[in-house]
Amino acid sequence: MTLRDGLQDATPISTEEKLALFDALILAGIKDMEVTSFARPDRVPAMADADRFARDVVDRQSDATLWGLVLNLRGAERALASGLTHLQFVVSVSEPHNLENTGQTIEASIAGLASIVSMADEASAVVEVTLATAFGCPFAGPVPLERVIEVARKVAALGVTNFSLADTIGVAVPREVGELVGAIKSELGLEELGVHLHNTRGLAIANALRALEAGATRLDGTVGGLGGCPFAPGASGNLVLEDLVHALDAMDEPSGIDLVRLVEASTKACELTGHPQESHVAVAGARFSNLAVTAQR
Amino acid sequence: MTLRDGLQDATPISTEEKLALFDALILAGIKDMEVTSFARPDRVPAMADADRFARDVVDRQSDATLWGLVLNLRGAERALASGLTHLQFVVSVSEPHNLENTGQTIEASIAGLASIVSMADEASAVVEVTLATAFGCPFAGPVPLERVIEVARKVAALGVTNFSLADTIGVAVPREVGELVGAIKSELGLEELGVHLHNTRGLAIANALRALEAGATRLDGTVGGLGGCPFAPGASGNLVLEDLVHALDAMDEPSGIDLVRLVEASTKACELTGHPQESHVAVAGARFSNLAVTAQR
Repeated sequence: MTLRDGLQDATPISTEEKLALFDALILAGIKDMEVTSFARPDRVPAMADADRFARDVVDRQSDATLWGLVLNLRGAERALASGLTHLQFVVSVSEPHNLENTGQTIEASIAGLASIVSMADEASAVVEVTLATAFGCPFAGPVPLERVIEVARKVAALGVTNFSLADTIGVAVPREVGELVGAIKSELGLEELGVHLHNTRGLAIANALRALEAGATRLDGTVGGLGGCPFAPGASGNLVLEDLVHALDAMDEPSGIDLVRLVEASTKACELTGHPQESHVAVAGARFSNLAVTAQR
Repeated sequence: MTLRDGLQDATPISTEEKLALFDALILAGIKDMEVTSFARPDRVPAMADADRFARDVVDRQSDATLWGLVLNLRGAERALASGLTHLQFVVSVSEPHNLENTGQTIEASIAGLASIVSMADEASAVVEVTLATAFGCPFAGPVPLERVIEVARKVAALGVTNFSLADTIGVAVPREVGELVGAIKSELGLEELGVHLHNTRGLAIANALRALEAGATRLDGTVGGLGGCPFAPGASGNLVLEDLVHALDAMDEPSGIDLVRLVEASTKACELTGHPQESHVAVAGARFSNLAVTAQR
């Protein structure tokens, strides 16, 4: 999420700088990346170069899966025209947040999604749906598990089989993450499920590890903890990718990502954006990598 | 650990300031506190007032269990003379770290512990033993689980039944925490077990939750993430107490601690020490406590 959620609320950086960051992330071994948002430039100025940047990263011909975030049919048209084959659509499971985030009701969002799914099918593109505020809403508060399943079923009725659960404002706790991941996978008969976490209350890594235990197959994060949602008051940085990679490596569940190169990408990202370095591993180093064998005794 | 591990590496604050912090922590509902270290003042200047401060907090007659850290017989004498009834003794399970931390071998530390246990028995005081570097050593690297059990057995042979496992340099990961907590409890037949965590690599909360699941009955932390070990290169702040309390409250496992008052103590602690506020909850607030119900739509 470094290039999308990590940058969308920041002072815009140039397309060339984004490309350098993309290359650094690919070099580190990232195999699945959301690269931009096809939003209105006046709403999200940092994504004003979405069409050009998407074309540029597609031209890189990496073997990574590259997603474009789309909020409506116009966005989907732009994403497909840019050469992207994977569209990420967002609908909030909470009505006031969906209104705030998209300017329309959940019903209208899902009606729009139907057209996007048709368009994507014709282009042999994949649509995934992020269920935003799945763990709580900045306006309505707690969201019952049944509510998430209800919206998910309406989306699944359109033929969508790719889902992600988003803790948009960073309120999730591990028990709820485990319960919701398990429930959504079993209720909808899903093989794959993404989880999008923010570290607003210090629980992103604990939530991520619980999500994996419960069957999540993809976790969103940003290097350095970049990011935040401009329309979700109180939201802060995303799950810190390098801290999660370090933890998984140490537990013999290697992610296939090169931690040293990921920290290099993180350093670059923080330099380009001015974002504070929120990664602990980027500061302290991997465990046992800096043994003080020469310390005075 | 706010008043001991949280302060020992910091610029010393006055005894009166420590007392104000003690009172704020008691007011928040902390029921178990390590209050000082009976170290040599030239080694740990921030604890130079240990004897007087211990007497002062004992005089407060709170219902909290108050521990004094002791590294040798002289320290134990001072702690008991100050009126403390709970002595925390530290031995490292890694030889080079024990040498660095105490100036003597593990064998010598355990021999000294035997005298402390006798003295405590006569005074009807409790001795708990912290097994330092139980998850890894800054000099020797990874520590096998069997090594921790071996040292624990030697300690238990002295009649000690109170133990704590310390991740002295912040290298533990949840899987290892779960395994070691379970193994030590079952191998030694313990009812209670403490775990002491540092957030050096961003895993303190995840480790804490796993420790509780595996049967840990006490977790060490500091408000604001204060602290670090002056003799463990690379170590950083302790587990952040208010972020853990918030997580447990949200998972219906209330700690009995008043989060609002704990954040007040945290703010005071950071002001007094100049330590950066490492708590996410102190910055973002408890989840759902700041709903943006009046936000513009």
